[in-house]
Amino acid sequence: MENYSVCQLQKDMRYEGFLMVRSAEKRKDVKGNDYVDMNLSDRTGEINCKIWNWDPGAAAPETGSALKVRGTVQEYNGRLQLRVEKWRNTTAEDPVDMSLLVPCAPRKPEEMMAEIRETLDSFRNEKLRRLTEGMLETAGSDLNWFPAAQRMHHAERSGLLHHTSDMLRLAKGVLEVYPWLNRDLLLAGVIIHDLGKNEELKSDKAGNVTDYTRSGQLLGHLVRGITTLNRVADRLEIHGETVELLEHMLLSHHGESEYGSPKAPMFPEAEMLHWLDMMDARMNTMKSAEDKTPEGAFSEKIFSLDRRVYHPRYTEDAE
Amino acid sequence: MENYSVCQLQKDMRYEGFLMVRSAEKRKDVKGNDYVDMNLSDRTGEINCKIWNWDPGAAAPETGSALKVRGTVQEYNGRLQLRVEKWRNTTAEDPVDMSLLVPCAPRKPEEMMAEIRETLDSFRNEKLRRLTEGMLETAGSDLNWFPAAQRMHHAERSGLLHHTSDMLRLAKGVLEVYPWLNRDLLLAGVIIHDLGKNEELKSDKAGNVTDYTRSGQLLGHLVRGITTLNRVADRLEIHGETVELLEHMLLSHHGESEYGSPKAPMFPEAEMLHWLDMMDARMNTMKSAEDKTPEGAFSEKIFSLDRRVYHPRYTEDAE
Amino acid sequence: MENYSVCQLQKDMRYEGFLMVRSAEKRKDVKGNDYVDMNLSDRTGEINCKIWNWDPGAAAPETGSALKVRGTVQEYNGRLQLRVEKWRNTTAEDPVDMSLLVPCAPRKPEEMMAEIRETLDSFRNEKLRRLTEGMLETAGSDLNWFPAAQRMHHAERSGLLHHTSDMLRLAKGVLEVYPWLNRDLLLAGVIIHDLGKNEELKSDKAGNVTDYTRSGQLLGHLVRGITTLNRVADRLEIHGETVELLEHMLLSHHGESEYGSPKAPMFPEAEMLHWLDMMDARMNTMKSAEDKTPEGAFSEKIFSLDRRVYHPRYTEDAE
Amino acid sequence: MENYSVCQLQKDMRYEGFLMVRSAEKRKDVKGNDYVDMNLSDRTGEINCKIWNWDPGAAAPETGSALKVRGTVQEYNGRLQLRVEKWRNTTAEDPVDMSLLVPCAPRKPEEMMAEIRETLDSFRNEKLRRLTEGMLETAGSDLNWFPAAQRMHHAERSGLLHHTSDMLRLAKGVLEVYPWLNRDLLLAGVIIHDLGKNEELKSDKAGNVTDYTRSGQLLGHLVRGITTLNRVADRLEIHGETVELLEHMLLSHHGESEYGSPKAPMFPEAEMLHWLDMMDARMNTMKSAEDKTPEGAFSEKIFSLDRRVYHPRYTEDAE
Amino acid sequence: MENYSVCQLQKDMRYEGFLMVRSAEKRKDVKGNDYVDMNLSDRTGEINCKIWNWDPGAAAPETGSALKVRGTVQEYNGRLQLRVEKWRNTTAEDPVDMSLLVPCAPRKPEEMMAEIRETLDSFRNEKLRRLTEGMLETAGSDLNWFPAAQRMHHAERSGLLHHTSDMLRLAKGVLEVYPWLNRDLLLAGVIIHDLGKNEELKSDKAGNVTDYTRSGQLLGHLVRGITTLNRVADRLEIHGETVELLEHMLLSHHGESEYGSPKAPMFPEAEMLHWLDMMDARMNTMKSAEDKTPEGAFSEKIFSLDRRVYHPRYTEDAE
Amino acid sequence: MENYSVCQLQKDMRYEGFLMVRSAEKRKDVKGNDYVDMNLSDRTGEINCKIWNWDPGAAAPETGSALKVRGTVQEYNGRLQLRVEKWRNTTAEDPVDMSLLVPCAPRKPEEMMAEIRETLDSFRNEKLRRLTEGMLETAGSDLNWFPAAQRMHHAERSGLLHHTSDMLRLAKGVLEVYPWLNRDLLLAGVIIHDLGKNEELKSDKAGNVTDYTRSGQLLGHLVRGITTLNRVADRLEIHGETVELLEHMLLSHHGESEYGSPKAPMFPEAEMLHWLDMMDARMNTMKSAEDKTPEGAFSEKIFSLDRRVYHPRYTEDAE
Repeated sequence: MENYSVCQLQKDMRYEGFLMVRSAEKRKDVKGNDYVDMNLSDRTGEINCKIWNWDPGAAAPETGSALKVRGTVQEYNGRLQLRVEKWRNTTAEDPVDMSLLVPCAPRKPEEMMAEIRETLDSFRNEKLRRLTEGMLETAGSDLNWFPAAQRMHHAERSGLLHHTSDMLRLAKGVLEVYPWLNRDLLLAGVIIHDLGKNEELKSDKAGNVTDYTRSGQLLGHLVRGITTLNRVADRLEIHGETVELLEHMLLSHHGESEYGSPKAPMFPEAEMLHWLDMMDARMNTMKSAEDKTPEGAFSEKIFSLDRRVYHPRYTEDAE
Repeated sequence: MENYSVCQLQKDMRYEGFLMVRSAEKRKDVKGNDYVDMNLSDRTGEINCKIWNWDPGAAAPETGSALKVRGTVQEYNGRLQLRVEKWRNTTAEDPVDMSLLVPCAPRKPEEMMAEIRETLDSFRNEKLRRLTEGMLETAGSDLNWFPAAQRMHHAERSGLLHHTSDMLRLAKGVLEVYPWLNRDLLLAGVIIHDLGKNEELKSDKAGNVTDYTRSGQLLGHLVRGITTLNRVADRLEIHGETVELLEHMLLSHHGESEYGSPKAPMFPEAEMLHWLDMMDARMNTMKSAEDKTPEGAFSEKIFSLDRRVYHPRYTEDAE
Repeated sequence: MENYSVCQLQKDMRYEGFLMVRSAEKRKDVKGNDYVDMNLSDRTGEINCKIWNWDPGAAAPETGSALKVRGTVQEYNGRLQLRVEKWRNTTAEDPVDMSLLVPCAPRKPEEMMAEIRETLDSFRNEKLRRLTEGMLETAGSDLNWFPAAQRMHHAERSGLLHHTSDMLRLAKGVLEVYPWLNRDLLLAGVIIHDLGKNEELKSDKAGNVTDYTRSGQLLGHLVRGITTLNRVADRLEIHGETVELLEHMLLSHHGESEYGSPKAPMFPEAEMLHWLDMMDARMNTMKSAEDKTPEGAFSEKIFSLDRRVYHPRYTEDAE
Repeated sequence: MENYSVCQLQKDMRYEGFLMVRSAEKRKDVKGNDYVDMNLSDRTGEINCKIWNWDPGAAAPETGSALKVRGTVQEYNGRLQLRVEKWRNTTAEDPVDMSLLVPCAPRKPEEMMAEIRETLDSFRNEKLRRLTEGMLETAGSDLNWFPAAQRMHHAERSGLLHHTSDMLRLAKGVLEVYPWLNRDLLLAGVIIHDLGKNEELKSDKAGNVTDYTRSGQLLGHLVRGITTLNRVADRLEIHGETVELLEHMLLSHHGESEYGSPKAPMFPEAEMLHWLDMMDARMNTMKSAEDKTPEGAFSEKIFSLDRRVYHPRYTEDAE
Repeated sequence: MENYSVCQLQKDMRYEGFLMVRSAEKRKDVKGNDYVDMNLSDRTGEINCKIWNWDPGAAAPETGSALKVRGTVQEYNGRLQLRVEKWRNTTAEDPVDMSLLVPCAPRKPEEMMAEIRETLDSFRNEKLRRLTEGMLETAGSDLNWFPAAQRMHHAERSGLLHHTSDMLRLAKGVLEVYPWLNRDLLLAGVIIHDLGKNEELKSDKAGNVTDYTRSGQLLGHLVRGITTLNRVADRLEIHGETVELLEHMLLSHHGESEYGSPKAPMFPEAEMLHWLDMMDARMNTMKSAEDKTPEGAFSEKIFSLDRRVYHPRYTEDAE
Repeated sequence: MENYSVCQLQKDMRYEGFLMVRSAEKRKDVKGNDYVDMNLSDRTGEINCKIWNWDPGAAAPETGSALKVRGTVQEYNGRLQLRVEKWRNTTAEDPVDMSLLVPCAPRKPEEMMAEIRETLDSFRNEKLRRLTEGMLETAGSDLNWFPAAQRMHHAERSGLLHHTSDMLRLAKGVLEVYPWLNRDLLLAGVIIHDLGKNEELKSDKAGNVTDYTRSGQLLGHLVRGITTLNRVADRLEIHGETVELLEHMLLSHHGESEYGSPKAPMFPEAEMLHWLDMMDARMNTMKSAEDKTPEGAFSEKIFSLDRRVYHPRYTEDAE
């Protein structure tokens, strides 16, 4: 049985593979028995299926999780449906390639997280190391799949790690050019600057943001990040300038009040954090726009850039 | 011995009365003995004095405190100086009228504080009452003399209480017109909205702001108020919507990002808090401007209003 | 015959009650006889009806007036229609509850107007009393039903009185806190500040604004209010500061040029008028937004606020 | 006796000529007799003089008027003073060249006024002709010397006529290019657009603006022009579209709210009026800036233009 | 055979006349033979036609060109189609009235161009004459039909000449009022100010803009005009102030950075060029808006003006 | 003879060393003989000197050049003066340390230039290499000492090279993180982006900007850079996309119209160029501000940042 993409499915085909739960709801059939109505998807499309005679005591599969599914494609009222014969939740052992199911960061979360931990181990400033570690602990394992946004830049599974680890690499580059910058402070700022996002956004494990949280709406990830940092610092009994510098870096990293920072960056590491954030967000947006635009052509106006984007041919003989 | 104002002093006059310490520094005279060089003031002026043979183990009098002083006015190098014969720190029993020494709120701090406590006692919402009480405790007795600003509105001794208690009275008025507003939430918001200021400003006990604190500059009183509120809530083990509503009211009470609030008010009590703050600040500024402008004339441009102010004659027969 | 709402009507029901004329047009039937095609409504919905054999000399019923109607519900081309058997215009004696027919102010216009007149009687400044009275006379009885806007705040029957009388109550509250404000000037400003609106908007008697007038578009209610005030003052032979203060309050009550006031408020009563207007308009908008949003949820973005609104649960145990 | 400029005067010179009264104050000498202390000026400078034994019943000469003066130059405390032997007020017969005394429009007021009257006579629209005439009558003979501003453009004697008559000539030019514009409406708008300025500014007869009037500050010349127009229209019993079009042209001629017009121009003649006003104001400012800047050089930043101005050499061989 | 407009065509009518090629594509019929599918239009509408058995070696007719066509109107699938019997490209001799086919400038391009050349002949400044002539040569014969914009003002065949020649007439008018302006410099600026547009826009010969060019998007007509001017000046070996003045006029003619000019006009002729451009663009927009609005009514909001436009009745008796 | 700094000089000291010519003017003494009046300086101060009996045929020393000087310090009218006994122009062989005389880039110009040339050699895109080389040739040897600004960032000798070479290092770092960027295009953009500055600013060889050039004022370095690039491309006969991409990078590198770029960056390399420019300019400004501020303190408001800057202590135990 070949490994088809959802967009390739046709009536009467046999299917076996991994699919993402897009939505799943327990209902009752005409006889009063429980069944589950699900939409399953990969990156190429979505297909509906029903699983009859559902155990009344069991919950429906979790939105954002991956299932192993086997069945036959049928047609019902002109639309394809998967008649599921066998299914199960996937485990860590399954060779699921998440990047076939949903938009994913280009690198594995484990790899990116290792890079961050390695950076942390290299800190000489003990207080900064412990505070940063405390923040990572608080964020917990959600970091592995958390996206960086609902729609703007890095709206993908593990997008938050993708954004953070690219900024970390940029930061190491600029430290070569400006060796007078405080290395540990800048890198700590990079690692924690967006950790408040997982209190701001509601995301399933596929990295799909469904909504903002109440405190995301009322306070935002900048302020929420600061209150979390205060709790971590209180717990670790760390106080003084070090904490306030990090608080300020969290608060000012959007650069100006118009973009949500009530204070502009007031020391070089805070200023640099802002530009690194800006640069990585913009490069991600520009890249996406180019990927969707043919060479030699202009895109439509990109909302977040407020301009059209040109995809150059880049060849020497381009007219 | 009459009770002169500083501006009335002339050479050879005898003086006895209460004066404010504007600055005080311990120095050594030519023989190596300690003396104190002080500037003393009331609302009408400032005069220098030296106190010789200062006890080397004693600190100079505290800036912003009031002293009882007796002495003679002398002239030295063309400027008046007070030759102090006797002096002491004032105590709670002394009949010091602070409003003769520095700009003061028009009501006694004790009276305003009582009004706030009485309001608090009338709360039905227990969580709001405990959180508000916790915030007042954290602010402590500094509240009695803390000003609301360095230069803008209510820049006076007890200005913070003045501003808060006037807003409280306004709030009670608007609750009559809009009875559907949540009373306790609005009043709690009014009481705590500017408490972060005593972590933002450095003020002496005369209500004179000398500078901003580091965290006042790097974070501001909105964010500092929020982290303090979180500490109070953690200590009281109060969580959930109530805390987040107060956090949002602190964050949004300047109304828009341009004025320092990264979030605009998102529910009616937060919106009302913003207008009450605005209204009271502006009335205080307008009143000060009018007090300095003759009837029937226009002031110079007032910086914080970006306009000139007219002082009407207000009489029916004014041409 | 029961008193149904329009949304409850079904085929073959008998109906008798009061309905609002939404639109009414005289036409000719196939035989050349006159008939009237009308849409009738209450707050719950709208139904079409035809009245055959209309007196050619008589005008169609007035849009915005209420009729007493009896008839049977029929279906025509799949849509309900009222076959009217009997109808008449309503009179002052009819027990018409306007608030069932259209959005209305929560209080009776007569009651609100009485409050205004009572306030006027309490004025000590004779010139202000006569000018304000003159403005009310010029506005005339339209005030009873005039709305305050087409869509923004207080877009309802008697909305102008609703807005004015709520501001009047707010004003009396703030006068307690700032007794140095000129009472009569502030209250006069409140009463006349929006009277120019009935030269700016075209509204039917149900408070439904259909359009702006030409001078509403070309000049606006601020300037039109000023020219009306000048005519009133000329007629009453009142000149001098009093008139100019009122003119300025009319011109500046939107606060800044961006919102239509070419001059910012230049004395305390003008400044206060602006904040009272702002506060009442915003509370009305916030209340409407909350009424449409479930507790614990956020509204869509509200156009006139440029933000989403949260409807708090307000309970102590809300998570 | 030669005709010296004030800047040429030296001790012991004899002087006879016309001078402008810059300031004049009646005082008492040591014996209790009245004298007048005056500053007299022409465009080149100012000189003080005293006139002793002043008739106690007579007022001091009027600021802004021209005197015929004869006397001798003396020195007192190191500064020149004119010892006046004979003086009198000037009359219409005196050959006073105002342009030697103060900044003046380049053309005679009589000539500019004649141009305006001639234009008025050519109107075919009777209502526009009568309204415009009524506005000119209300402005009265002050128009002959009134300046257009305190500091910005056309701040000179007869500057208002200068600005108006230049715009009138521009208007006649554009009517050739856009013959579909309503001629009389555009020209009427040009003539009356700034007439409100003589209720906005306080100027002496030399065209020197000393201050704004109260209603200039509180309302401005746009709104004051509209109320005056309404009085004129009421008196002439003219109503309807014609009046409203002119009202709108007055209100909108500054183009946008940021520059004081709460409504932007809504028909072509109003739009054109705005651009003519802008163009003439800017050309006057640009010309003044160039006159003060050497060829081939840049001026300092010109405040009202927010930029530096270059004075080109304009020759073909300029490098 | 009468001369029908496209909107008048009905089934079975015979048609002969000139039509514009709106689009034209070569395709293959079921037998593999080439045919052309075209949409033909005049100002009133569009009709489809097919021309069978097309010569495989010949290109389809050029979009934006006019054809002489004879045929019969048929109906196919409910839509009219022209069955073409005979057709040919038009030549200079054909009496084609372009203004019946597409929106055109009100004057002939030849006439407008003659006016420009005549102006050029009157220049006394030889360098300005040669540079302006060089720019016109570079633009070439496209000027005859080039529009001034895609949608804003003068979006019509020969719109660029229309705009330029109207500005030239305005310029001659203002030179009468401000004779101190440098005549040749101002007129040269007017003639060349928008010539960069034919490197910015892609237009067919009917004046229909289909897109922006790459350099139009990346650089714009201001900068492209400057590089072209530099090439012309290098070729003519003209350097120095004259060239820089023209460069600045090109760069600054949009007036401020917000509208695309990185430098504001810094000398009077540059300033005047900006206002003439503004004035003519606005009058064109206002006229179009009025032409579409009934007398006595308001238009919808006009996008490029950000306001509604009123079409006055302009009569003395208009209410 | 010791090597004193100018600020250490005292009366009667003997001096020998290298000094910078700050200003130098040829004058005539009382006997009609030529002498030169000069101000000489190093980074610590300035001293005046006269050189008598100057050769009438010789020019005064060039402002911005370094001289070798020997003499004695004298006092004249209370100010120190250097009585020069011997002096000469310096040559390439002299061990002049420019960084003692004026603010200088921290690296040698030769070293930075070598880095740029090396980068250029690594280009694979031949057209980009030749265009970039052509631009460097046009700029010529002035590049060795040219500053990047008059006052903002990198206002120092060789500041333009300093800024360019730091950006080049940053660029190489970001290319590691975003390998999909076109390397040669980005690096070419970095090298040429500010070359227009040496046509915009007038600087002496000490890197001291005295003024803007005419074309700097009228056009700016963005547009001047583009016309220079066009001349280079014409000369090298290179056309097409490559040139337009570079033109756009020059035009858009200030990011938005408010900062002088009429076009925002439209492809990733242009976007990145803007952020690199921003980042390096800001880091330079931040560093300067910190260098002038004690640890643990705030600076005054920095004009170009519109904020105060904090100089952190950066230690773990900082309170």
